[in-house]
Amino acid sequence: MNTKSISRRRFLQGTGAAAIWVPSTMHGYTSAEMQAFYANGVMEQDVAKSELDTPALCVDLDLLESNIGKLQQTVTANGIAARPHGKTHKCPTIAQLQIDAGAVGICTAKIGEADAMFQNGIDDILMTTTNVTPTKINRAMKLREQCPGFIQATDSPQNARLLSEAAQAMGITADVVVDVDPGGHRTGITPGQPALQLAQLIDQLPALRLRGMLCYDGGSQHVKGFEARKLRTLESLVAATNTYELMQRAGLNTEIFSGGGTGTYNIDHGTRGLTDVQVGSYVFMDAQYLDIGGETSSDVYADFQPSLTILTTVLNDQYAGRATTDAGAKACTINQPWPIIKNETGMSYTSGSDEFGTIRYDDEPSRTYKVGDKLDLIVSHCDPVVNLYNQMYAIRNNRVEAVWQISARGMSA
Amino acid sequence: MNTKSISRRRFLQGTGAAAIWVPSTMHGYTSAEMQAFYANGVMEQDVAKSELDTPALCVDLDLLESNIGKLQQTVTANGIAARPHGKTHKCPTIAQLQIDAGAVGICTAKIGEADAMFQNGIDDILMTTTNVTPTKINRAMKLREQCPGFIQATDSPQNARLLSEAAQAMGITADVVVDVDPGGHRTGITPGQPALQLAQLIDQLPALRLRGMLCYDGGSQHVKGFEARKLRTLESLVAATNTYELMQRAGLNTEIFSGGGTGTYNIDHGTRGLTDVQVGSYVFMDAQYLDIGGETSSDVYADFQPSLTILTTVLNDQYAGRATTDAGAKACTINQPWPIIKNETGMSYTSGSDEFGTIRYDDEPSRTYKVGDKLDLIVSHCDPVVNLYNQMYAIRNNRVEAVWQISARGMSA
Repeated sequence: MNTKSISRRRFLQGTGAAAIWVPSTMHGYTSAEMQAFYANGVMEQDVAKSELDTPALCVDLDLLESNIGKLQQTVTANGIAARPHGKTHKCPTIAQLQIDAGAVGICTAKIGEADAMFQNGIDDILMTTTNVTPTKINRAMKLREQCPGFIQATDSPQNARLLSEAAQAMGITADVVVDVDPGGHRTGITPGQPALQLAQLIDQLPALRLRGMLCYDGGSQHVKGFEARKLRTLESLVAATNTYELMQRAGLNTEIFSGGGTGTYNIDHGTRGLTDVQVGSYVFMDAQYLDIGGETSSDVYADFQPSLTILTTVLNDQYAGRATTDAGAKACTINQPWPIIKNETGMSYTSGSDEFGTIRYDDEPSRTYKVGDKLDLIVSHCDPVVNLYNQMYAIRNNRVEAVWQISARGMSA
Repeated sequence: MNTKSISRRRFLQGTGAAAIWVPSTMHGYTSAEMQAFYANGVMEQDVAKSELDTPALCVDLDLLESNIGKLQQTVTANGIAARPHGKTHKCPTIAQLQIDAGAVGICTAKIGEADAMFQNGIDDILMTTTNVTPTKINRAMKLREQCPGFIQATDSPQNARLLSEAAQAMGITADVVVDVDPGGHRTGITPGQPALQLAQLIDQLPALRLRGMLCYDGGSQHVKGFEARKLRTLESLVAATNTYELMQRAGLNTEIFSGGGTGTYNIDHGTRGLTDVQVGSYVFMDAQYLDIGGETSSDVYADFQPSLTILTTVLNDQYAGRATTDAGAKACTINQPWPIIKNETGMSYTSGSDEFGTIRYDDEPSRTYKVGDKLDLIVSHCDPVVNLYNQMYAIRNNRVEAVWQISARGMSA
């Protein structure tokens, strides 16, 4: 018997009939218990982060709030707005924090995300993906009927006509923006005349209201080095700016010209006409974004703080040079760079195995772990990681302050 | 207006107040509607697979049943049993199909999966991971109290003592197996004397019942080429077999010697003493397993059929040589080999972008896609893909026969 960790024991009565065994020095709460503690929107139990069952997705509130404030201050100073992307956090509570800080609304990638956000109190939603099937067009029109602040993207004349027909059939007018391809050929219409003609068509269709355009240059976001990133971003957006000016000269509504992201939030305002940035990852940060370098340091992108971590527990410590944890690919994804063990040096983490993570020690690790020890991982790529969890724990000074529902988790349709 | 796809329109009254626009040639149902149609366990609406909102996770029932039957027949003929791994499907309905076909029970990787399985009618569960924290040990003991068929793994004397204390405190006897390391040093205790001594300790502890051992050799499962895989598997398991014999000679219970998986299901019975295989992926198959080659073909592992697919819709077709779909990393993961477009040639698929998938055409594609077209993807790696979805559609002859809940989705804790 390990007498160190179990100096004495006590037996507590559980919620059911059975007695609960709890070593006096260790408490712990399941995700179901945590949800129950927060059922009324206040934490009815003082719980330390280390008492959470693992793997657990945690967000540090001080860092999150700092990120939201820093972003908003910067874009305001640069004369543009924030329209943060809900695909990153999928969490209406965080969307509300962003709006409270001054964001003009949020973006979503999928209609399911938009529904979840609206059902949880978010009223200004720009959906950046085109709805092409009858099912999705109907979902979008039903949402627009209830939510006057819902705007959707379109990228072809055929799709714009379908949207107008559907809106007309439902007796509404639907707000749309033209999605312009930044050159990646993934989504969006070709800038210049094709985009202008689509905007003109939208302006003429009976049940659509043109609100402007968007151009999301995903390819620029992770370009390493601030100057290289700035050069590429501003070049990539030249065609979009020209399109914006064509639309303006044609007398079309250009009140929205949305683009950019976390990697370019302090670059995008250099694009003439751009009104707002669709920043997503800045709230959480991740190993991928830390790697790209910033204006003040070429080594690390330090504009925002890594607020999102995965708490994991060591399951096996009996082999030299390594330890095994309970957070593998189903808790971390297999995105790379791999998760970073927070506040430690001399060790690395891999989450390539579905159920287990692996810690490997270098020659001089800052510490080693025993079975049952918990550690914090800075996530590899925040968006798909969040999409694995139903809830996240909002932490301040290592206490759980709230349990936030990730209401749009899995809403890929 | 595109007069080809919308030859006439009709307007249907929706469930709410609003009229629903539906082109006569196209119907479609959301996941919420599909759940409602199947609320009583029978499909109350005839729905074609192509009418599902996308991305949608689909399982072909003919292929699934064929896989379950083939596996069971083979292991029975080889004198061992099947104990399929629930971490793959996380779906109690499939677990029940496996048990109905003759499996002696199922495995789970996490206590949350075991809970979800038991709450949905599965009584024989072997948890292959060690529970090390007080929270998880309590969860395991509570489950064991209700579920006499629950067996858990342990891999250290310290952990075995904690389990015994917890079981004793709750007035129960807990069933355990020794997890033996196959050499990967990920989990499990060292074979030979350390494993034997742990088994003897378990046998002596007051509130534990030794049921045998497990040794899962994950590293052998994806070795390419049947002969190479066979050689490695049987070599890797020699130390486990020796441990099994030590336990037998010491008069310990060895009724369970569980190991193996989909890649070695027809090899493992060559290991002396092995009682059952913890096969997971065989029910669904995936691009990773197709790649390893089988006994009858070195090119493709054709023992089981790919039954699991992701239905996706084309969102953009306006750029040469490619098309963009609605199934990216959040619907497919970024596991490789990439998903395979079913029944087509001359094209490839990548799901590296969070929200979008990319089809690229070679010189002679078997077809090209238009916006709104749907296509089927054989998944890259079935386990983490299933973990993204709340439900899967059970399909026969392209009609939806059932909507299955993935009850243990996200149960990584």
